[in-house]
Amino acid sequence: MHIAQLAPLWERVPPVKYGGTELVVSLLTEELIRRGHQVTLFASGDSITAAKLEGICPVPMRDDRQLLEPIVYDLLATTTVYQQAEEFDIIHNHLGIAMLPLARLSATPIVHTLHGVFNRDNLQLFNKFSEQPLISISNSQREPAPHLNYVATVYNAIDVPSYDFRQEPEDPPYLAFLGRVSPEKGLHIAIDVARRSGWRLLIAAKVERTGRDWEYWQVIKPSIDGKQIQFLGEIGKQEKCKLLSGATATLCPINWREPFGLVLIEAMACGSPVISLSNGSAPELIKHGETGLLVEDADEMIEAVRQIKSIDRNRCRKHVEENFSVARMADGYEQAYQKALGKEDIILAKPQFQPLAKSATIAAAD
Amino acid sequence: MHIAQLAPLWERVPPVKYGGTELVVSLLTEELIRRGHQVTLFASGDSITAAKLEGICPVPMRDDRQLLEPIVYDLLATTTVYQQAEEFDIIHNHLGIAMLPLARLSATPIVHTLHGVFNRDNLQLFNKFSEQPLISISNSQREPAPHLNYVATVYNAIDVPSYDFRQEPEDPPYLAFLGRVSPEKGLHIAIDVARRSGWRLLIAAKVERTGRDWEYWQVIKPSIDGKQIQFLGEIGKQEKCKLLSGATATLCPINWREPFGLVLIEAMACGSPVISLSNGSAPELIKHGETGLLVEDADEMIEAVRQIKSIDRNRCRKHVEENFSVARMADGYEQAYQKALGKEDIILAKPQFQPLAKSATIAAAD
Repeated sequence: MHIAQLAPLWERVPPVKYGGTELVVSLLTEELIRRGHQVTLFASGDSITAAKLEGICPVPMRDDRQLLEPIVYDLLATTTVYQQAEEFDIIHNHLGIAMLPLARLSATPIVHTLHGVFNRDNLQLFNKFSEQPLISISNSQREPAPHLNYVATVYNAIDVPSYDFRQEPEDPPYLAFLGRVSPEKGLHIAIDVARRSGWRLLIAAKVERTGRDWEYWQVIKPSIDGKQIQFLGEIGKQEKCKLLSGATATLCPINWREPFGLVLIEAMACGSPVISLSNGSAPELIKHGETGLLVEDADEMIEAVRQIKSIDRNRCRKHVEENFSVARMADGYEQAYQKALGKEDIILAKPQFQPLAKSATIAAAD
Repeated sequence: MHIAQLAPLWERVPPVKYGGTELVVSLLTEELIRRGHQVTLFASGDSITAAKLEGICPVPMRDDRQLLEPIVYDLLATTTVYQQAEEFDIIHNHLGIAMLPLARLSATPIVHTLHGVFNRDNLQLFNKFSEQPLISISNSQREPAPHLNYVATVYNAIDVPSYDFRQEPEDPPYLAFLGRVSPEKGLHIAIDVARRSGWRLLIAAKVERTGRDWEYWQVIKPSIDGKQIQFLGEIGKQEKCKLLSGATATLCPINWREPFGLVLIEAMACGSPVISLSNGSAPELIKHGETGLLVEDADEMIEAVRQIKSIDRNRCRKHVEENFSVARMADGYEQAYQKALGKEDIILAKPQFQPLAKSATIAAAD
């Protein structure tokens, strides 16, 4: 197939550091090429890809000190891909709502992966274009707008082999927290759990130096004693693997409707069971009792820490290999493309993607 | 004609307080209706108009405390007008760049009034849609992009009869400054001129409490002595007319490429000659030596204050009545619509608009 991939323009594809969406676009693009598809990537001009690159802006918008009107580049991207539409069998939009007005007018089908959350504002636009084929990154993501035209849920993936796995956790043992310092990531809950259960907690987190997150950090900071509660700051991939693979468990006290918790699958890939509040996509990503534990509050999280040794670390790794590999994600998107093209009855050579929520299928495969 | 007017969504049409563009859209819309056109106004839902109103958002975005994604409403507006396009003879876009991608696909011609300035970002989009018919609000506005497809310059208008005129300035005399407290409005130059020439200066200006403008205000504030240099803060229409009509001259030390200086025509309408730095649209709005004086720096501005009594205040008012009335603006837009529709040869019953830069025409009409 001839496929257009339209990436967000905030980061390079793949991103130098952050940029969850840009990383997913990169993994998908390179895998589609490996599978023999012809792919054109519309992205920041410094992107690195085996696809044909259509650079929309010379540097990622995040690095552009002279940037005045970000929407200009979104509109440049959507119009550029629209102008070339007839060259493609399918256009895959990861950029967001700016593509919707032209999507309806495109003779080439366009599928839109939802990388964000629905809110009062963008829902009005999705409702106006309710015929557009959407792909959710978890089933829970759909909840505020179950009436829209979803063609699939395709979970995000990680490059599993690049994550170090450890059979046994580090000794002396510790719990891990990885994420932004932000109320909705629930760092205060993780600290409370560690203190009350007497465990060491190693925190690797980015601190945003503005706004609400910065105020939150002022409240959190006094709890960091450098002994029981240690703060490692922002860390790279290698240190991240070391932290997660050595952890007895990773705490994810997610306080919001997170559409896809990447940290959860990264932790499990490294062999760390995950203890998460049962919000957003967490129940779809963790197999409760097998790869981690879903809890409702801090008290239950403390109880879960006591039980965590019952989780098999090999099972955690295997769960990610089976359900969140790049191959699995690409299978899901290939099938979604077929469905959007009205060819959903064609049997693909590769095993078809099954939403993880239908857990019977997964259990049967064990 | 059936005309669609697409207004910005930041303020009501007409605006409660600020909103230069929304005010122009209101004056134009009501005048077009008076002339027998059928007009649909796409604007904030609380707008007040004799046109058919298509409310895009219930309240203006500026008043919407829950606003998360302003671009959503721009896209809702542009797609709503596009969907109804065949009902109109012409669509008049005041909203900006969000209309460009759909404009090329519209069977109904769309003209775009440029209410802002060109910058590195938006120029890329205008270049991509370089066939689109643009209307500038001054000739100087075109300078960074003279190659685009301009169908007319149509100057902004004010409702001249609603501005009080005074034949003689207030005694004791003073100079006036009206505008935002902002480096590009040049308040520091006005204060320097007043101090060095020994004149009183009355300043009516809004102070933005954030960013660069707030820093600038900290530098300016010590100069306000409440006697020679007086600060009136933000004032309403009635106080504005009182300030301007009583001023011996209004100082406009504009430091940037302002596409249309509304204060200049408001001052002249009230009978106040204007002394302005010769930047942006100022040379098109002031008739040098007749309705004000154009200068190059503070020293020349001091010299101009000495000469200001030679300017006839009646001539100032007449200049605005002749060139910046709502009727004149509506004439200009009617002609621009005809041109965009390819009917530019049709002789209109009303006198045709002439760009002010061709000053021979105006001089001949005196």
